[in-house]
Amino acid sequence: MNAPAVEVTEHANRRGGGRLGRKALRGIPMASFPTLVRKIPVYEMVPDEAVELIHEESLLILEEVGCEFRDDEAIALWKAAGADVSETRVRIDRALLMELVSKVPPEFTLNARNPERTVRVGGKNSIFVPMYGAPYVRDLDNNRRYGTLADLNNFHKLAYMAPALHSSSSVICEPMEIAVPKRHLHIIHSALKHSDKPFMGIVTSKERAEDTMAMAGIVFGEDYVRDNPVLVSITNCNSPLVWDATMLDAMKVYARHNQPLILAPFALCGASTSASAVGAVAQVNAEALAGVAFTQLLRPGSPQLYGQFMVTVDMKTGAPMGGTPEAAQMMYLMGALARKYRLPWRTSGFHVGSKLNDAQAGYEANMLMHAAILAGANYIWHSAGWLEAGLSCGYSKFATDCEQLVGWYKYAGGLPFDDFKEAMAAVREVGPQGHFLGTKHTLEHFESAFFIPSIMDFNSYEQWKAEGAKDHDTRGREKARNMLADYEEPKLDEGIAEGLKDFIARREEALPNSVS
Amino acid sequence: MNAPAVEVTEHANRRGGGRLGRKALRGIPMASFPTLVRKIPVYEMVPDEAVELIHEESLLILEEVGCEFRDDEAIALWKAAGADVSETRVRIDRALLMELVSKVPPEFTLNARNPERTVRVGGKNSIFVPMYGAPYVRDLDNNRRYGTLADLNNFHKLAYMAPALHSSSSVICEPMEIAVPKRHLHIIHSALKHSDKPFMGIVTSKERAEDTMAMAGIVFGEDYVRDNPVLVSITNCNSPLVWDATMLDAMKVYARHNQPLILAPFALCGASTSASAVGAVAQVNAEALAGVAFTQLLRPGSPQLYGQFMVTVDMKTGAPMGGTPEAAQMMYLMGALARKYRLPWRTSGFHVGSKLNDAQAGYEANMLMHAAILAGANYIWHSAGWLEAGLSCGYSKFATDCEQLVGWYKYAGGLPFDDFKEAMAAVREVGPQGHFLGTKHTLEHFESAFFIPSIMDFNSYEQWKAEGAKDHDTRGREKARNMLADYEEPKLDEGIAEGLKDFIARREEALPNSVS
Repeated sequence: MNAPAVEVTEHANRRGGGRLGRKALRGIPMASFPTLVRKIPVYEMVPDEAVELIHEESLLILEEVGCEFRDDEAIALWKAAGADVSETRVRIDRALLMELVSKVPPEFTLNARNPERTVRVGGKNSIFVPMYGAPYVRDLDNNRRYGTLADLNNFHKLAYMAPALHSSSSVICEPMEIAVPKRHLHIIHSALKHSDKPFMGIVTSKERAEDTMAMAGIVFGEDYVRDNPVLVSITNCNSPLVWDATMLDAMKVYARHNQPLILAPFALCGASTSASAVGAVAQVNAEALAGVAFTQLLRPGSPQLYGQFMVTVDMKTGAPMGGTPEAAQMMYLMGALARKYRLPWRTSGFHVGSKLNDAQAGYEANMLMHAAILAGANYIWHSAGWLEAGLSCGYSKFATDCEQLVGWYKYAGGLPFDDFKEAMAAVREVGPQGHFLGTKHTLEHFESAFFIPSIMDFNSYEQWKAEGAKDHDTRGREKARNMLADYEEPKLDEGIAEGLKDFIARREEALPNSVS
Repeated sequence: MNAPAVEVTEHANRRGGGRLGRKALRGIPMASFPTLVRKIPVYEMVPDEAVELIHEESLLILEEVGCEFRDDEAIALWKAAGADVSETRVRIDRALLMELVSKVPPEFTLNARNPERTVRVGGKNSIFVPMYGAPYVRDLDNNRRYGTLADLNNFHKLAYMAPALHSSSSVICEPMEIAVPKRHLHIIHSALKHSDKPFMGIVTSKERAEDTMAMAGIVFGEDYVRDNPVLVSITNCNSPLVWDATMLDAMKVYARHNQPLILAPFALCGASTSASAVGAVAQVNAEALAGVAFTQLLRPGSPQLYGQFMVTVDMKTGAPMGGTPEAAQMMYLMGALARKYRLPWRTSGFHVGSKLNDAQAGYEANMLMHAAILAGANYIWHSAGWLEAGLSCGYSKFATDCEQLVGWYKYAGGLPFDDFKEAMAAVREVGPQGHFLGTKHTLEHFESAFFIPSIMDFNSYEQWKAEGAKDHDTRGREKARNMLADYEEPKLDEGIAEGLKDFIARREEALPNSVS
């Protein structure tokens, strides 16, 4: 796997500070790419007037129908802000809505425990983030089973090693053997211990969000995490038009710490929205804007991510689908709206409906990532591992996605013109019927010119057969296994490591073993 | 598989003229989509100045280095036109080049033997065309073996049945059991007999091109095919910068019949071009323009297709790759150049390096088709069946690609806004926390709102397992098998069918059994 022309940083904690040589030859990623700064234009699928039309319809929904905010404190805040409140229904006029939305900074810095992994989100800056929330894994032996803490550790290790992943996410898979009330402690610990990239918060209760912040405080300093973004958390609107108490509780904890939230309706288009791609976008836009606006009542100027998770539904069975044409089209609309509002924007990359890392997964994954890249997404989530509409995280899929991300990083980096004149000189040098393999230009650009994936196989049929005629899924599992064998932990400072352990022990004692 | 909102035409020769009902329920495509008229904007990856820079470098190459035309008649034509000719090297100044290129019509009609299958190519009009030239097939039992005439018949049947394919191609796979000198007769016969869509010509010798035209004449009328396009033929420049005698012979036959040629360098970027995506495009552009210009010496005003086949090369092994980021980026550049010259433009859609219809194939295929659609390609070739860098045609891949094309057809048709107001009325009707499944709008738009593929599986894991836990590759083979079981031949007029048989018998007698 060749790296784009970016700064290569050696692992922070490589044993003996050894040379890149032998390991690099074995194909282990030794580079971590900085923030992807997109150098290609965004694709506008519809004209500005169409975007304005959607915007207008979204505002009308918030003014006429309003949105539910099912929490007393939230309702009090909306009343104080001057919204039209009736029980839990909040109708927000456009002036108030847009005033609040405009307080969100268009870009923010997301700090990592290793400063070399700190990234920028918003504007032309994009990051790739692994999936989140799978109860199942498709494991290294191709079995589907419940996720465990060992699996979660593995996925955090892979996220750390993947050069184009900019985050470790958090609950990539659920460690199902750990009691629910204590699980969040081990999820956050795994992310912090096995990787030094930014991560994600827990949102399933106020208490768990507070524990997340406490653990972040141990690593970064309690004062530091009151103002400086170190993690991103997801809050989903319950489409249509409901922000529920659990989500609002999480928002309160994180926004007040200046930690960015993703305000993203989880929409099954056709079921929780109308059977119209444009209609679905207008509804989801209203829901997301209401959420974004609310965060600014909690802490004006706090960084936030506008966004969506939108899949279409098989209208015959009700099943959510993955990489469909409409999912891509809706991304272009959401991107245009995000730019209109100057909001950092989250979408999803490689999320698929397929149960396996097979042709379906490939077709679906690429459909969505291509759109995410051209639509100018900033926080490209679910960019590694996702199978089965999110029910399962696959090792093979994870490794495949990580490799493909390197290609997308290069793609979004644009076409280099700096060696164009020399390339044309090579044409003159070679002339008709020659070949270019020995030219000076080729020798100089041999390694950087083209993306060369390693899990994909381009050998001759005969060579491929001699190597076992393995399909991509099999090669992906092998790649994941090999990566894990070469993993080296980016060790935490001993005091911090102890602090985390103590905190977890204390909280484990305090917390019950089952949800009452 | 649901169809986009296009005119549905019943099969021309359905037995008993029966009802759509039962068959439609069994999922057999009963619709053939008209020309795809793109309703989404093209994506311009680079600014106009970059396109001009490439154009300028291409012209310099043709003026300074020139291009080989290895045929006496071609050389004589270039001399007569005023080019700078030295033996077989032709240097073409920009005035002459652009004058010739400007004679090519920006759009043309490609006539089918069933007028309902006649399509338009160029401008906003695009068509999807199956692959071409595979010696091997990956068959219905998942074995890789030589292609046979029975396979070729099958692929022509599938091409006929796929609603979003607009052509039957010709030599989708090679019927390897037939002697090479006689093979072309059976290839063209298979395409004409099993499908009523436009097809492609044979280019491997002057005589075979003439036989192709004679057979087309039997079907369409000898006079008709002297002026009216009924088939498209491929002529590849031998990169770098060589148009060889075989290709020039084919050009002479087809262009003089006003039958469109694809003037497309077959470039292994990094080997037959420089190791620069931009440099490769500038070279290929020069080669294609030289070919297009030459056709206008043969017949001014004849319809032609500018284009390219460009894959990058794994610089470690020399193997051609498939759906890489650079292949997509180069497509955007070629599309921009085609628009600059107002030329109908050919690229390729689903061509992959993978040996199997697996995750690699899916990732690769979608990478390229997404670019082909957004780059505004007109003749989207290799849009069904392609595996192994073209060495093999897969039944599963063919069926998968055909289904995906329906999605791409819908994607390129743009986002419908016509029911937007009603969709928003549904949001008001449903309100917070409702669902949309029973609303009037949903019931009315149930079938057309979202693309629902049938080979892809979105069932629950449990349902999928109960049905055999089949991967996409397996389901694709089943789909191909089922389609073939339901095939009904669009019968030729008896006199025409006899005429073709007589011609083939006569030619078979005259032709040798082996190439001397």
